[in-house]
Amino acid sequence: MRVKLLITYDGTDYCGWQIQKNGNSVQEVISKAILSVTGEKVVVTGSGRTDAGVHAIGQVAHFDTQSKIPAERFALALNTFLPESVKVLSSEKVNSTFNACRSAKIKTYRYSLYKSSIILPLKERYSARVEQNLDFEKMKSATKLFIGEHDFSSFCSSGSSAKTKVRTIYEFYAKESDDGIDFYISGNGFLYNMVRIIIGSLVALATDKISEKDIVETLNGKKRSPNIKTMSSNGLCLIDVKYE
Amino acid sequence: MRVKLLITYDGTDYCGWQIQKNGNSVQEVISKAILSVTGEKVVVTGSGRTDAGVHAIGQVAHFDTQSKIPAERFALALNTFLPESVKVLSSEKVNSTFNACRSAKIKTYRYSLYKSSIILPLKERYSARVEQNLDFEKMKSATKLFIGEHDFSSFCSSGSSAKTKVRTIYEFYAKESDDGIDFYISGNGFLYNMVRIIIGSLVALATDKISEKDIVETLNGKKRSPNIKTMSSNGLCLIDVKYE
Repeated sequence: MRVKLLITYDGTDYCGWQIQKNGNSVQEVISKAILSVTGEKVVVTGSGRTDAGVHAIGQVAHFDTQSKIPAERFALALNTFLPESVKVLSSEKVNSTFNACRSAKIKTYRYSLYKSSIILPLKERYSARVEQNLDFEKMKSATKLFIGEHDFSSFCSSGSSAKTKVRTIYEFYAKESDDGIDFYISGNGFLYNMVRIIIGSLVALATDKISEKDIVETLNGKKRSPNIKTMSSNGLCLIDVKYE
Repeated sequence: MRVKLLITYDGTDYCGWQIQKNGNSVQEVISKAILSVTGEKVVVTGSGRTDAGVHAIGQVAHFDTQSKIPAERFALALNTFLPESVKVLSSEKVNSTFNACRSAKIKTYRYSLYKSSIILPLKERYSARVEQNLDFEKMKSATKLFIGEHDFSSFCSSGSSAKTKVRTIYEFYAKESDDGIDFYISGNGFLYNMVRIIIGSLVALATDKISEKDIVETLNGKKRSPNIKTMSSNGLCLIDVKYE
């Protein structure tokens, strides 16, 4: 049977979702837990990679098993073998046509910023620090520029192997928090470092290093300004993956 | 001159505030940073100990120095030597009669709970998990029982060396959060594990293991019920220390 998992993790100490030769990956930790539960070596397919240090509240994955354990019991069984930093929130039996990666329709990420001239130890793990004063209204307003279908070639890192760099953003909005701002961005897919570069462009805008016009032109294919930084991974969290 | 520091830390990887023979303490980390900045070996006096794993947003400490560095520049200078998990928010020159421990008048702690049958990796570091459904209204209402002067002998761990166990609670209230509850408790001082045991009594109450009457009787000197657990350190955070 095919089992779908809903997974949450603190990515701080991981090299990312995907198994790497040298590094502790979430995928490997879950594969090992499945081995402990079922005795089977399986491939766990995630909805997509998350990079080193990126967190997840709602990562989705699937695997196939011959095990007689009821699918919905896997969450509990796997959690007894998983470390505190990775937990399965739920498990269910799915049709063998379901593919956590290929069937994914909408992904939602959150990116959290906090404003402080000093590193705040109790914020730093799940939020990226910005030293400058940010014009929140400017950032909020500019989220609208990204909505819709765009070629995001200028908003991804060079390691991206995607065939097409056209992606559709369905929703992108900001919520002010206690001492910062949380962005929620939903789309049909995201390129390598795309969310972190998009947020970097909003930070550059909010600190007057680029203009809204620069963002529009970059979305239209202009090379991105060196003032647009790739934000750090600690502020990024995969919130939700939607399927048909 | 005497310098007062306002300090924040993530206590997860520390054996607590106080220097221990075997263990990494916040006090030691700060002493070492002062040594790096001034070349002086000094005693850093904190407002009080925080236990292993307890966090702080507003710990206060003082030390004496012959250094010519302006007191308000110490924050920046120390932060360059401090790890990400400990930072000085501000520093100022104070009168030599100021003592971070003895002059402290009111301390405020926060204790955070979240409700989940599964460990949530992104909550667990700064919040204590409760598996059962909690009757928040019952907990909120019972906070009132603690306000005022009481002998907290039955609300501290046996390691407490305090001469008198009478303490005054000035304020104690709860705020519901996204998936839990945050308690804020202010008093003229707290005994060893006192906040964690008080919260344990509220959890016992909210899960029908003890009654309000039991809390009142325990405050009046009855030995505490074994149903009252000492809550874990990760949910506890020193928020503020007030001086005259």
